[in-house]
Amino acid sequence: MTEKTPKIQRAGVVAKRGSEEAAQTAYELAEWLRRRDLQVALDEATLHSHGSSAGEVFEPGRRYDLVVVLGGDGTLLAVARELPDGVPILGVNLGNLGFLTEVNRSELYPGLVKVLEGRFRIERRTLLDIELLRAAGGESTSFRVLNDAVITKGALARIIELTIEVDGHLVARYRSDGVILATPTGSTAYSLSAGGPVVHPLLPVLLLAPLSPHALTLRPLVVPASSLVEVTLGTRNEEVYLTLDGQEGTALSYRDTVRVTRSDVSVGLIKVSGRTFYDSLRGKLRWGGLSETAEPPMPSG
Amino acid sequence: MTEKTPKIQRAGVVAKRGSEEAAQTAYELAEWLRRRDLQVALDEATLHSHGSSAGEVFEPGRRYDLVVVLGGDGTLLAVARELPDGVPILGVNLGNLGFLTEVNRSELYPGLVKVLEGRFRIERRTLLDIELLRAAGGESTSFRVLNDAVITKGALARIIELTIEVDGHLVARYRSDGVILATPTGSTAYSLSAGGPVVHPLLPVLLLAPLSPHALTLRPLVVPASSLVEVTLGTRNEEVYLTLDGQEGTALSYRDTVRVTRSDVSVGLIKVSGRTFYDSLRGKLRWGGLSETAEPPMPSG
Amino acid sequence: MTEKTPKIQRAGVVAKRGSEEAAQTAYELAEWLRRRDLQVALDEATLHSHGSSAGEVFEPGRRYDLVVVLGGDGTLLAVARELPDGVPILGVNLGNLGFLTEVNRSELYPGLVKVLEGRFRIERRTLLDIELLRAAGGESTSFRVLNDAVITKGALARIIELTIEVDGHLVARYRSDGVILATPTGSTAYSLSAGGPVVHPLLPVLLLAPLSPHALTLRPLVVPASSLVEVTLGTRNEEVYLTLDGQEGTALSYRDTVRVTRSDVSVGLIKVSGRTFYDSLRGKLRWGGLSETAEPPMPSG
Amino acid sequence: MTEKTPKIQRAGVVAKRGSEEAAQTAYELAEWLRRRDLQVALDEATLHSHGSSAGEVFEPGRRYDLVVVLGGDGTLLAVARELPDGVPILGVNLGNLGFLTEVNRSELYPGLVKVLEGRFRIERRTLLDIELLRAAGGESTSFRVLNDAVITKGALARIIELTIEVDGHLVARYRSDGVILATPTGSTAYSLSAGGPVVHPLLPVLLLAPLSPHALTLRPLVVPASSLVEVTLGTRNEEVYLTLDGQEGTALSYRDTVRVTRSDVSVGLIKVSGRTFYDSLRGKLRWGGLSETAEPPMPSG
Repeated sequence: MTEKTPKIQRAGVVAKRGSEEAAQTAYELAEWLRRRDLQVALDEATLHSHGSSAGEVFEPGRRYDLVVVLGGDGTLLAVARELPDGVPILGVNLGNLGFLTEVNRSELYPGLVKVLEGRFRIERRTLLDIELLRAAGGESTSFRVLNDAVITKGALARIIELTIEVDGHLVARYRSDGVILATPTGSTAYSLSAGGPVVHPLLPVLLLAPLSPHALTLRPLVVPASSLVEVTLGTRNEEVYLTLDGQEGTALSYRDTVRVTRSDVSVGLIKVSGRTFYDSLRGKLRWGGLSETAEPPMPSG
Repeated sequence: MTEKTPKIQRAGVVAKRGSEEAAQTAYELAEWLRRRDLQVALDEATLHSHGSSAGEVFEPGRRYDLVVVLGGDGTLLAVARELPDGVPILGVNLGNLGFLTEVNRSELYPGLVKVLEGRFRIERRTLLDIELLRAAGGESTSFRVLNDAVITKGALARIIELTIEVDGHLVARYRSDGVILATPTGSTAYSLSAGGPVVHPLLPVLLLAPLSPHALTLRPLVVPASSLVEVTLGTRNEEVYLTLDGQEGTALSYRDTVRVTRSDVSVGLIKVSGRTFYDSLRGKLRWGGLSETAEPPMPSG
Repeated sequence: MTEKTPKIQRAGVVAKRGSEEAAQTAYELAEWLRRRDLQVALDEATLHSHGSSAGEVFEPGRRYDLVVVLGGDGTLLAVARELPDGVPILGVNLGNLGFLTEVNRSELYPGLVKVLEGRFRIERRTLLDIELLRAAGGESTSFRVLNDAVITKGALARIIELTIEVDGHLVARYRSDGVILATPTGSTAYSLSAGGPVVHPLLPVLLLAPLSPHALTLRPLVVPASSLVEVTLGTRNEEVYLTLDGQEGTALSYRDTVRVTRSDVSVGLIKVSGRTFYDSLRGKLRWGGLSETAEPPMPSG
Repeated sequence: MTEKTPKIQRAGVVAKRGSEEAAQTAYELAEWLRRRDLQVALDEATLHSHGSSAGEVFEPGRRYDLVVVLGGDGTLLAVARELPDGVPILGVNLGNLGFLTEVNRSELYPGLVKVLEGRFRIERRTLLDIELLRAAGGESTSFRVLNDAVITKGALARIIELTIEVDGHLVARYRSDGVILATPTGSTAYSLSAGGPVVHPLLPVLLLAPLSPHALTLRPLVVPASSLVEVTLGTRNEEVYLTLDGQEGTALSYRDTVRVTRSDVSVGLIKVSGRTFYDSLRGKLRWGGLSETAEPPMPSG
């Protein structure tokens, strides 16, 4: 869970799309890093937004010693799944504290000082490789997600039938609005709204959460991350989509199969605070921490 | 709850679209009714399916003394919301027993004998009037449902924001995949899959069940059927739809409002058996009725 | 829903047991009311707590024109179910705002001024009559509840089997930790924790919510308030209890039956504010009312 | 996951308490095993039930090459947590198929033939060590469970407050009826009834599932099996109990702490069939496997 990276020389900075505050912060940050002799690349949209074409353009596929993401969990999701294995990412939340972002705006420079001095941990998060196998034509397309892959019917579609297999064994064939296949990281995102459990982010597991299942006995299922999960669409002539981290999507057809496995590549989230996953739960989900003037028990409500 | 109708003279017969078995049964049934001196109208698709253009065409807007629906709950839903107030419907299930259909294929003629002899009850089911008010242009469109009106995001859309008001009072403004507005009849359909309660069909209530709400404190809500429920879309530029009884749909735009009230018109389901709503729950949802060789309690599996 | 009561002459004041603040407030309030020429009775514990034996003792069974309860929802529950039909109660919350209490400490005197001037509504809340029929001996005992009657196994007991009948019809026979029978008022108390829906307080319905049912298809059920609900214990030799409004309890034995019907007596809650039930939901359950700096949608966390 | 044991010489046979069928089967089985030159020990109750005092008495703490349990999951639970590490157990279900028992009555001898020929797998199941630390006196008591340890209020108790810590970090302090701490094996038992997820039995995780939590945001939580989970009771003067595998229990007092860790000892379940965990889900929970005459989608019910 704790790894020291070698000296940081090349940094990438990515700002939330369409946020002037994020772009402004990115420029300041790039300056701040350059004054400390780092080579800095800025995301293209931010570079262009200031009419400037000077400066190096951030390319997610290249290897940086550090990537700073300015925005929210959404921006971090989009960047993280494009990076090579284990590139350290520092998430900076410009709005409310997220589950993935590590520091707020006011903690940005103190946090970076810690990072440059090597005083940080890296938390490895599982990514999923998603392979879409077309029944017609036999083609396949690959994706990667940090939160979840969701198979879901279009708003006007009838209930759909999916067959779920794990390691070649039939788990269930059921009617529902769809299914969420989530990493532990994704357990606090869409899966939670759909009734899934909260899962510690470092566990080697996958989550399958049905969406409004017709059969009332279906429940969220936690399987080994080493599993091969296959979901096959058993419905014809209805709009059904595969969506990735809630950000990209593609239409599915009858008998198309979505294969899910753990990726060889993982994401390295930089941790500079002592804040734990459980602290995030309390902060974001308002778990526990009863007030001192203890609210009376329910019947006295 | 119990009403006697006057002598039955005009009957409509509607068969499930695309089912040869249903069409065949409809023809036989029409013959059977005509031999008993009833005037019979058959649905257009069935009439044409047999190459015949003779015979009266069933028109839902006209007043019949009896309408027999051959198919399943889906066919009955489609017919019921088009009928004038209180036209007695007998639902005949050609597949598995439904919540709305009253008799199976084998009980069709014995059931009809009871109906013609006046030995039946009519159970009045609430319909909802749905008015869609367009923010742009100010137009409005009206619909009617027996089960539910559902506002839901498209598969590729992000989470949407809805404002819910009841009788002009703000109930909640929340982010979710959508909301189900259901009658008691609809409580055993989509709403149940979404975590809603089972509601006795004759209660004067409406159900609001959120779909995968972002805020974990949101729960299904039961309000008086006399309420005016208004749902306004607070999200721009995302695909959002209003669907009616899971059968029709229309796209919604930013600030469009869906207004829901109880209809003046109700559906009159014919009951010829002594089977109660609770019997249907046990049959369809497998509630209770533990086997005699009582399964051991959970810890003993 | 709105009733004017005749001139208020006799008032009862009840303070939360064991709260010095409540007792102190009760004394001040009694003085305040007497200065306005009302005849005031104080609950016995409060009278005695100040070493005083002077003053009239509040007796719930007598008829008062007004009862003021100082404490929380728990104190109000305990008083309300002992009162004759429709005695107006004003609930004053000394801690957090409750679902039943109408005013906070700071709103007490302004609220009372409104009450004495007749500027208030009375909201009638359904009470349930609970009759416990003993299988052995055939005796029966009666109770009354405003929130709920709960049948639940002891902590060391195995899962129990209950048979639920409504109006003589079998609903389910199931294994669980127990069942909650709640009024709409009780829908926001224990039943909500057990997965029940929120029900508008003026609806003529009863709620049945199973506690950790063994069969996953069992769901909360909403039935007419006019129903006769009977729950019979089918388990021998395990500790099982009937608890009333979470405040009183009694042990059940094999084949004992709990019969639940709507009471002829109802509770009259005084409303002096314009606050609606939906306002309470937003305040207590934090429903909706998204902040202006709108939290980003889930995938962007 | 697959281990071969050395030649089987000593076998223990345990029958369900109070079941004549189980005792009879145990006797026959003991004969059958002795004819194959095994040394056989029978549980004491069964030995005595037939008026016989001859034969070796089964003592769970001794090491057997094979233990056969005749009864159900409950009998297996009771035996399994008393055995030394990894003693192979074959569960024989005399009633309905369980999650833990591997063969039915009719498969008993064919299954044993496979076992004696070494044609079987052993599936290692995690046990939890439960340590109860008394606030008063500082004593501690230890237990072991295969399914779950449950902290729960007595039937007449008010809602209780628990503080949950994982590895010394506060997770939540909440009001509820209690909490279930379950192994993956226990995920299909009580935890499932309380809304917990289904967890693959070989995953290195623990489950925490709250029972009827007052705060609606609390959800089941999955943490590493290597965690130290500590639950401390924050309520005085209410009956609260710790129960173990639903079979043993002990009263808790204010400030008592229950510490949960993975045991060094694990249970070795014998698998002779090709049946997977997912097959059990389909069989026991009726997951998927839609009938060929496919039930129509919900709106057509």
